[in-house]
Amino acid sequence: MEKITVLGAGSWGTALAMVLANNNHDCLLWSHREDQAIEIDIDHTNKRYLPNIVLPSNLNATSDFERAIDHATTIILAVPTKAIREVCQQMRVHLKEKKLFVHVSKGIEPNSLKRISEMIEEELPSNLVEAIVVLSGPSHAEEVVLHHPTTITAACEKLEAAKKVQDLFMNNSFRVYTNDDVIGVEIGAALKNVIGLAAGIVDGLGYGDNAKAALITRGLAEISRLGISLGAKAYTFSGLTGMGDLIATCTSVHSRNWKAGNLLGKGATLENVLDEVGMVVEGVRTTQAAYQLAQKQQVSMPITEALYSVLFEHVNPKEAVDILMIRTKKHELEDYKTF
Amino acid sequence: MEKITVLGAGSWGTALAMVLANNNHDCLLWSHREDQAIEIDIDHTNKRYLPNIVLPSNLNATSDFERAIDHATTIILAVPTKAIREVCQQMRVHLKEKKLFVHVSKGIEPNSLKRISEMIEEELPSNLVEAIVVLSGPSHAEEVVLHHPTTITAACEKLEAAKKVQDLFMNNSFRVYTNDDVIGVEIGAALKNVIGLAAGIVDGLGYGDNAKAALITRGLAEISRLGISLGAKAYTFSGLTGMGDLIATCTSVHSRNWKAGNLLGKGATLENVLDEVGMVVEGVRTTQAAYQLAQKQQVSMPITEALYSVLFEHVNPKEAVDILMIRTKKHELEDYKTF
Repeated sequence: MEKITVLGAGSWGTALAMVLANNNHDCLLWSHREDQAIEIDIDHTNKRYLPNIVLPSNLNATSDFERAIDHATTIILAVPTKAIREVCQQMRVHLKEKKLFVHVSKGIEPNSLKRISEMIEEELPSNLVEAIVVLSGPSHAEEVVLHHPTTITAACEKLEAAKKVQDLFMNNSFRVYTNDDVIGVEIGAALKNVIGLAAGIVDGLGYGDNAKAALITRGLAEISRLGISLGAKAYTFSGLTGMGDLIATCTSVHSRNWKAGNLLGKGATLENVLDEVGMVVEGVRTTQAAYQLAQKQQVSMPITEALYSVLFEHVNPKEAVDILMIRTKKHELEDYKTF
Repeated sequence: MEKITVLGAGSWGTALAMVLANNNHDCLLWSHREDQAIEIDIDHTNKRYLPNIVLPSNLNATSDFERAIDHATTIILAVPTKAIREVCQQMRVHLKEKKLFVHVSKGIEPNSLKRISEMIEEELPSNLVEAIVVLSGPSHAEEVVLHHPTTITAACEKLEAAKKVQDLFMNNSFRVYTNDDVIGVEIGAALKNVIGLAAGIVDGLGYGDNAKAALITRGLAEISRLGISLGAKAYTFSGLTGMGDLIATCTSVHSRNWKAGNLLGKGATLENVLDEVGMVVEGVRTTQAAYQLAQKQQVSMPITEALYSVLFEHVNPKEAVDILMIRTKKHELEDYKTF
């Protein structure tokens, strides 16, 4: 039994806390909202994010940040990408001893173009960080809480730390693999939301499964090109955190990014879409960061560029997709030559 | 304007003939059924396979096999894998001059373990074969006839022949890429039906999108391992004919293999399923061939083996999938080490 704290009681943070509590760990879930912490702690529900789910009775919750940090030897950060630096800055104040950090966020910071683990590293004192592990893969919270079979990857350059996280989460319906390619896992996790948005647009335009399969395939090719230019390993993109998560995002009704893209494809404006989806759409922010990264790395990312033009330059979605489709004929492998 | 014959008036043969006629080629569609040939030639419909579609008025059809062969300089074989050898043997009788052959079939012959182009090569006199090109990719006929954007690959060791086929089919909604890796394209095309069946089973069991994304990812990994052991190029499996076609098959309601698997997952017997789907389910035959190939090549293919046990050894689908899921924990990259 390990002492673990999950920071953030959204659907994913709550689902992960549920897996840990079911595995008999002493898991504390922190919410910044007192009423939500009380609901989870007393009623064992989190109706806003996981309606109809009863949480394990051994899962405790708190809105007391200091208590949450003191509780654990392992801290899981399950907050939106936007909040990562702020939460780390708060944590820094209360951190007294070395802990293991796990993050489950997906995104890249615009302008700085930092990955999540780089942001955490910058904000926390290195002598109090045992390791930073990223947990990522095709894993809709709504299915994990129903114990549907899920496979996911724990990645860290220190493979021992990844194995420790694997041991914490592993059970019969939640399978954890390890990987040491943090760059590849984080780039795949972030960029899949960009392609997820684009896939939603293609579906919103009514373009069908042939077009979507092509988009996902070419999407993974451009994610891989970018990742490899940053030092990632090519085969990580063929794994659960690359191809697997991309497929889940682009083909599932649970995906917020797909939903947002779908509304855009049907003619909604970006402002209306963000209102309607009502939750964070990481893909919008990541598209900006990915566009900047592609320019910096001088990597060709036609889908990302097309999506950027739709989101930030008022290009009509149909026009953008048609330009993507109608390119000069070429040898399929030309796309891979830059690998 | 080229003279082209399409052999086989199923949904895919008809859709391809439609693309060629729309591109203003002199295209003749051969059906072994006289009434169907008359329907296509006179009424410009093929109601059994493509209901509600009006075919181009410049598309002609015949059930006269000799006329069909004599008509063209390029022959497209769009017959079921099972019929490939028989059609080639018939063709051999009428073949007077060198022609270009294109096939669009997906499968591997059980026992001989030959790919489609190998079967054609064996049956036709080499002095009358300009080249054999395989056309493959994520392309449901139902979408192609509605001019939904579709991308596909023409593959041949003689890249000039692949380029010729690219020129015949290419238009604004039907984009053709070229590739010279015939083994990779044919293995990807055949094996995707095996994983498509398995994906249908996972959906039929109600296991959700996380499990399906993992299955598709690990499915492509084992297809790649097999293909590479046979001489294919690794990156072909990341392209349209590998990953692209696999995604389209596993996530589309149009896929017969997915449908068949879905019924199996819901508890139907193989006999009932084949009756109900009513069309050819290539995946069943290919599972047998892939299982044999994996043994011959000594390649680990756990999903193919699990599916084989369901189809041919009466193992319960839920049991087979659960065994696949609950394997010992490992490093994700171990799966790729055999590449």
